[in-house]
Amino acid sequence: MGRPALSSGSTVETAEADYFQNNPPPKEFSQNKQLVRAFVQRHSEQGRRVALVTSGGTTVPLENQTVRFIDNFSAGTRGATSAEYFLENGYAVIFLHRRFSLLPYSRHYSHTTNCFLDFMEIDQQGKVTVKNNYQIGMQTVLQKYQRAQTEQTLLLLPFTSVTEYLWSLRDTALSLQVLGPNAVFYLAAAVSDFFIPRDRMSEHKIQSGDLNAAGLSQGTKLVVDLDPVPKFLKSLVDGWAPNAMIVSFKLETDPLLLISKAKKALERYSHHLVIGNLLLTRAWEVVLVSPGREEWVRLPNHGPDPTGTFAFESGSVLEIESLIVPKVIRLHDVMIQQTCN
Amino acid sequence: MGRPALSSGSTVETAEADYFQNNPPPKEFSQNKQLVRAFVQRHSEQGRRVALVTSGGTTVPLENQTVRFIDNFSAGTRGATSAEYFLENGYAVIFLHRRFSLLPYSRHYSHTTNCFLDFMEIDQQGKVTVKNNYQIGMQTVLQKYQRAQTEQTLLLLPFTSVTEYLWSLRDTALSLQVLGPNAVFYLAAAVSDFFIPRDRMSEHKIQSGDLNAAGLSQGTKLVVDLDPVPKFLKSLVDGWAPNAMIVSFKLETDPLLLISKAKKALERYSHHLVIGNLLLTRAWEVVLVSPGREEWVRLPNHGPDPTGTFAFESGSVLEIESLIVPKVIRLHDVMIQQTCN
Repeated sequence: MGRPALSSGSTVETAEADYFQNNPPPKEFSQNKQLVRAFVQRHSEQGRRVALVTSGGTTVPLENQTVRFIDNFSAGTRGATSAEYFLENGYAVIFLHRRFSLLPYSRHYSHTTNCFLDFMEIDQQGKVTVKNNYQIGMQTVLQKYQRAQTEQTLLLLPFTSVTEYLWSLRDTALSLQVLGPNAVFYLAAAVSDFFIPRDRMSEHKIQSGDLNAAGLSQGTKLVVDLDPVPKFLKSLVDGWAPNAMIVSFKLETDPLLLISKAKKALERYSHHLVIGNLLLTRAWEVVLVSPGREEWVRLPNHGPDPTGTFAFESGSVLEIESLIVPKVIRLHDVMIQQTCN
Repeated sequence: MGRPALSSGSTVETAEADYFQNNPPPKEFSQNKQLVRAFVQRHSEQGRRVALVTSGGTTVPLENQTVRFIDNFSAGTRGATSAEYFLENGYAVIFLHRRFSLLPYSRHYSHTTNCFLDFMEIDQQGKVTVKNNYQIGMQTVLQKYQRAQTEQTLLLLPFTSVTEYLWSLRDTALSLQVLGPNAVFYLAAAVSDFFIPRDRMSEHKIQSGDLNAAGLSQGTKLVVDLDPVPKFLKSLVDGWAPNAMIVSFKLETDPLLLISKAKKALERYSHHLVIGNLLLTRAWEVVLVSPGREEWVRLPNHGPDPTGTFAFESGSVLEIESLIVPKVIRLHDVMIQQTCN
């Protein structure tokens, strides 16, 4: 049971075909394809649901031999944290993430104010070990990580550019079709809306005084001219993953725009759920927008801390993803039931 | 003994003053200023030389509440690795680095194909410890790291945007003046040449259809219009650090431009050394360009590995920074001697 094809499909399909034709796949593409196929096959046989979690920002290179690029702000906190809660709820997870962004489990020990070596000490036997005050926390995390490894429920797929991301997204979606409604797409990555077509991209680092279509350095100024990335969420919903549950994210900075932008996305793409969040409050409140429904999810007793920075929390403290993911799973349950009736 | 002031100084100074006036300092600025003052004071009293090592890429935000930004490619490998060799050669190091880029010592265990947790295991006593095959390597690294902590020879200062970087660079340079020729500036960070002035920057995330000076979204396209960053290397050499040794880097992708661009920078700024490197070969060859001299430094038996990716090496294997840093220090010795005569 798929969604009906849309009349505007042909335009979207043309833009999509053009994009993939003009922007070739990354080097590791066929190797990753094999990994994804085997992963999906295994979990399909075991009757396990699979979540594709995307995470981190995509880059848009300004040069082919890339020195400069445009990036979207995202450390990968939402994606990496959510992936853990999908795993804890029995899902297998394909984690399509920006290279070197936060990863499930290891996130607890990276991007912290401490360097990783601050957790370690040399004991009386001369052995490198974890300091006593970090032992219990790290045991808990390491056990969960080792379980995901033993059960082979976590597949890490990295990307850097928006093009790498889109190749992997499409291919993974096609692989996941065998699962029908048992797949969920949880699209937390911050994907660029704009890119520079390969044929207009400078081969070498743009020099002051260079003249080219992508980065036009006019004397001392630099003008960067970008095209819109085709609307791949449309392709995903209608073509690549017609039977899966699809959850997209909407990040805004202006509170007045958040709900309307989320609703507009839901109408435009006819998928299941938009999770709206604001840059400054995203660690403690989000809004779940589904057809005919808005639900705010908030951490109790939260807000900016007195220094004005975020009160990010991890480990044993309550994380908002521990509230979001179960709600997504309840919606997934309902969707699967409706499909089967 | 300083360098003579240049006749063009006034233009540079005006652009510089304008920049700092229009782009206010980061929140942590006065706190960092105290840390730097105390650090320099201590090492000045102990007669230790100090290296300011800059590392990683600077960002140029497209919005005030930043969702999108332009970045310069750099994981921070050169800076983090070089910092270790300065420390091993008796220098104290101020490490001015892009937040979350590679750090001295912990770099050996981040941005690897392994996640940090892959190095760990739970032993028979239920204690989290480092796996046997990683013990010796990690002991060596941890001992060096702990020594730098005990001797307080390493100060970590993070930045994200080009503006944060420039505020810290200027302030640190002014603090280092008390050391006279005993300071070296090793400018390995990839600093943006272009930025969007604050008064032209969008407050909120740029929406399709928005019209503004910084990011002009024309219907479906996005045009980003950037101004040149004032030439701060000139300010550094002539004004902020007139008696220190200054080493800049030149990264190019076109082999035909490398030497000429390095020489041009040396002539333009009248400093001591430009280290030239190419994006694709930077892990195993660089060229040191000083007045009247070019010297290639190469790792023996190196080149792209058979998969076409870099053969980055770390730990016990020879790193090119172990060859570069001692050469810089020899030049620093000579410069100090000349100053004292």
